[in-house]
Amino acid sequence: MSNPPTDLAHPFDQALALEPLGDHRWQGHTSPAYANMVGPFGGLTAAQALAGVLRHSECLGDPVALTVNFAAALASGPFEVIARPARTNRSTQHWVVEMQQSGQTVLTATVVTAVRRQTWSADALPMPKVPAPNDTPRTFREAPVEWIKRYEMRFLEGHFPTAWDGREGGSRTRLWLRDDPPRGIDFASLAALADVFYPLIWQRRALRVPIGTVSMTTYFHATAAELAAVAGGFILGEARASAFRNGYFDQTAHLWSEAGALLASTHQLVYYKE
Amino acid sequence: MSNPPTDLAHPFDQALALEPLGDHRWQGHTSPAYANMVGPFGGLTAAQALAGVLRHSECLGDPVALTVNFAAALASGPFEVIARPARTNRSTQHWVVEMQQSGQTVLTATVVTAVRRQTWSADALPMPKVPAPNDTPRTFREAPVEWIKRYEMRFLEGHFPTAWDGREGGSRTRLWLRDDPPRGIDFASLAALADVFYPLIWQRRALRVPIGTVSMTTYFHATAAELAAVAGGFILGEARASAFRNGYFDQTAHLWSEAGALLASTHQLVYYKE
Repeated sequence: MSNPPTDLAHPFDQALALEPLGDHRWQGHTSPAYANMVGPFGGLTAAQALAGVLRHSECLGDPVALTVNFAAALASGPFEVIARPARTNRSTQHWVVEMQQSGQTVLTATVVTAVRRQTWSADALPMPKVPAPNDTPRTFREAPVEWIKRYEMRFLEGHFPTAWDGREGGSRTRLWLRDDPPRGIDFASLAALADVFYPLIWQRRALRVPIGTVSMTTYFHATAAELAAVAGGFILGEARASAFRNGYFDQTAHLWSEAGALLASTHQLVYYKE
Repeated sequence: MSNPPTDLAHPFDQALALEPLGDHRWQGHTSPAYANMVGPFGGLTAAQALAGVLRHSECLGDPVALTVNFAAALASGPFEVIARPARTNRSTQHWVVEMQQSGQTVLTATVVTAVRRQTWSADALPMPKVPAPNDTPRTFREAPVEWIKRYEMRFLEGHFPTAWDGREGGSRTRLWLRDDPPRGIDFASLAALADVFYPLIWQRRALRVPIGTVSMTTYFHATAAELAAVAGGFILGEARASAFRNGYFDQTAHLWSEAGALLASTHQLVYYKE
């Protein structure tokens, strides 16, 4: 397994560049390397919002919970992140975050950071028994959008339907994934990885209906040291839906290290048309 | 099944009273009827924060996603809810909410509301096959705190350990539940019901370690009409954990109507000590 250091030459780190503007404000830019059909890959936008907290001089501890709400597709170009510590306790801190373009809100978010202490710990959801990444062929498919090329994906279950014929399928997907080129994992890249799953409704319906995530929440179970240990290794991702109802469906996903540690659980609500 | 109208004599409606202060601000009060060990029942606080959005004259549609972050235990007495529409689109609206006491932030929240249209719909997580509420005895237990008396609970699985002996158990719970006295269900009461589950770590460890929810997200799958159809009926709740790690565990729960419709899915991150 390679162990690349976090590297400013990596497109993810380039995309996460933020210039401090003072008064809790940062300026960032959308990244052509992570362009989606309309606007940028939401996972990158989530990571950029989180970065506004993590790089803030007042930030206490590491993130434990992140919620981002996508209010509008970002236009290509600059944006501002406003990351305000609303409450600082002894070991937890509550942040309110907004991303704006031309004075308009394009994203709202909240972050909870915490200083974590070692306690009794246990995993209640074991990693599924699946073939190792090296025994799983890389899934090559058309990348109709640029950001998909930034991730290596090795599907185990529930990849793209072979035909968009409207024949209803399952609503679970499992795959090995990592940054491409590989990159050491940290909270920001984990926040982005949490959004890599392709829309479960496309699998369920075998129809590419228009979709867009409206809200995404990620809980971070791993510490910074545990993430560093993953280095450039693969992450097992499993996502499933519980309901598709009148224009919105939900998705719950879990991300494990190859060694079987649950790194994060993540949930999102996705708009769909028709 | 009884069908009580929403009634201002109900303690939940009394607790949700909000007085408009103008400029997106409301004044509310904590409710002795929903008192918890320290501060009020978090589900009620979440409902009060949501009410600041739903009663706002600019509110568009119904809630689809709610995230509340509990920054501090509320002191008994008045609080202010500031509910600001950060972005209004054609059919969705993004709200940033804060609750304050004496000028200090005690809760941050975001809400997404939407005008929903009828579309292709499907449930992907069927309601578990369990005995009907009428065949499930009501679970009586000591109510060490007042709010527990506000809910009727009929446990099917994973209720309180019979002994606090540290013998590790499961991390799943299932129960029928409803307001007590019964009350028609709406988005605010569903937001509160999403927090009724007792801490899974108490079941898992058979130890009553100190806990506190830090963040909770609820996705509403039902429309207002679908909720109204539930009337004062029972809700099946199922909650499970995926990881207990260094002071925080997560909980994912689903709430179905007795007729088997998934009304909401909800997730939270809970602090625990030791």
